Amino acid sequence: MDKVLITAVSFGQTDPDPIRLLEQEHLSYVINPYGRRLRAEELAGIIGPYEVLIAATDPITEAVLDAAPNLRLIARIGIGLDNVPLAATRERGIAVTYTPDAPAAAVAEFTIGQMLALLRRTANADRGMRRGEWHRWVGRRLGLLTVGVIGVGRVGRRVVGHLQSFHPMRILLNDVNIDEDLARSNGCVWTDRETIFREADIITLHVPLTPQTRNMVGEQQLAMMKPDGILINTARGGIVNEAALAAALRARVHFSAAVDVFVEEPYQGELSGLENCLLSCHMGSGTRDCRLRMEMEAAQEVVRYFRGDPFASPVPDAEYLMQVEG
Amino acid sequence: MDKVLITAVSFGQTDPDPIRLLEQEHLSYVINPYGRRLRAEELAGIIGPYEVLIAATDPITEAVLDAAPNLRLIARIGIGLDNVPLAATRERGIAVTYTPDAPAAAVAEFTIGQMLALLRRTANADRGMRRGEWHRWVGRRLGLLTVGVIGVGRVGRRVVGHLQSFHPMRILLNDVNIDEDLARSNGCVWTDRETIFREADIITLHVPLTPQTRNMVGEQQLAMMKPDGILINTARGGIVNEAALAAALRARVHFSAAVDVFVEEPYQGELSGLENCLLSCHMGSGTRDCRLRMEMEAAQEVVRYFRGDPFASPVPDAEYLMQVEG
Repeated sequence: MDKVLITAVSFGQTDPDPIRLLEQEHLSYVINPYGRRLRAEELAGIIGPYEVLIAATDPITEAVLDAAPNLRLIARIGIGLDNVPLAATRERGIAVTYTPDAPAAAVAEFTIGQMLALLRRTANADRGMRRGEWHRWVGRRLGLLTVGVIGVGRVGRRVVGHLQSFHPMRILLNDVNIDEDLARSNGCVWTDRETIFREADIITLHVPLTPQTRNMVGEQQLAMMKPDGILINTARGGIVNEAALAAALRARVHFSAAVDVFVEEPYQGELSGLENCLLSCHMGSGTRDCRLRMEMEAAQEVVRYFRGDPFASPVPDAEYLMQVEG
Repeated sequence: MDKVLITAVSFGQTDPDPIRLLEQEHLSYVINPYGRRLRAEELAGIIGPYEVLIAATDPITEAVLDAAPNLRLIARIGIGLDNVPLAATRERGIAVTYTPDAPAAAVAEFTIGQMLALLRRTANADRGMRRGEWHRWVGRRLGLLTVGVIGVGRVGRRVVGHLQSFHPMRILLNDVNIDEDLARSNGCVWTDRETIFREADIITLHVPLTPQTRNMVGEQQLAMMKPDGILINTARGGIVNEAALAAALRARVHFSAAVDVFVEEPYQGELSGLENCLLSCHMGSGTRDCRLRMEMEAAQEVVRYFRGDPFASPVPDAEYLMQVEG
């Protein structure tokens, strides 16, 4: 009987090493038989026999856990835990591990790229040229703008590091934990979210999705932003209210957004029809090195579980608390 | 009678200050009556009466100069002089000025943006989502690659500066002038062009178009590049052979290129149909601040001319020599 269910469709596709590791340990596994992201009912329908789940962003609802009497470990590939009901896993004695450091470098590079793309409207130019148009967009230079970074953890910090070389006028930071050293060493300023919404030319989000951050950017916050403001979400769908964002993009042609993550993925919604929205498919962590590292780290936790070794990255208590505080 | 012909269609559109400056000096001017880039015959047809030409990248051929008996100054907006036959202007006693520093910051930011876009295929993802597709491209991280910079002048140097914050494995540099300090201070390596073509994952061009650099990247050089190599041309059309590039892009699906400049602009050619080509419309210098600075500096040279003051940026002899040496 297979012991490990892997719901991440692309597991082992970038590089076979994570699969090889499981095989070396004689751990039998099944990779998502649907070949796409599972719905909760689908996951509940197949999870019953498995002791270990290697999960992507699949919806691991309490109903799924109820259908998983043998489950003892959820090894998340990635950092977000919004799809794992941590209190419910703890009640059931199911351990949860994650790979918090692996995605950060890829997400940070991706974020800077989307920022520069929106500043110059390069995707618009590319689409236009494919239609035979020649419209020379005039944009703005990152070096003259104020950038707001909401969430200054593993990813946000790296974004700040990359931004330094463009010498923006100001980098406004917001996080629940303030690191004064960062402000001193990099010429950044810690401030409140409202100041960021009002004063930043570009706002980039690097917070987890929790009860506190759900719909953190809605109609009210979008209305505070500059008419030619730029909003970037490479963090999680749900942090930005999609309907409010679509309305803002429709109402203000000089406003623009890059959206990599959505409430429902694969996304098929009104944002895809808007010229001032730059769309991507939850690709922030999608570099070969980061995918491989995430998958290897998850596979290694599975090996540790079966060997009875302690986990390298069990989800810390702070994450459990964040979900409860909502 | 108007004294100044301005062929740059967008002159004064980003900001009216350059126009105001001419008006304050009571200099009468005409802005390109065609509303688009002129062909040589068209420019020859209207240039006759004018003493001063404020030019973009219009083809200022010798035939144009023959039709311009009153011309005494060509004030180029921008840095490239491939469209100005310098020996012929000198023979006729026509001064030429340019704005060499103004575009650099915008071009450098643009270049980094296109680099990051190709590494993650974000334009492909955006186009796909607009067609209802959800394909999660897996890319590469700049921090793990070798970048080759050919042409390390005003723009190339800034590109290197921005690259530093991504900590690429190696930055290979090539220029006719070697600055050893740059290699020491930034961890870069000076090398020959062939090494760059063979070893770099990403190659970005920042040389002028001269007889020496025309078709510098052709079939032979493209064949040396890695199968998943990335080529970026934000410098000038003609440096890369367009037919050879199109053939390389067709033959190798993992190879990709960002092309901002073309032999004929507006461009309408086969590159626009290729999925692994990221297209833009000569937008490298296109930020509000750089456009304004370029236009103001050109207008100031015109003011200096009529006042009899020395120019701030007359084209230096080295540029005249570069054209002759071909």
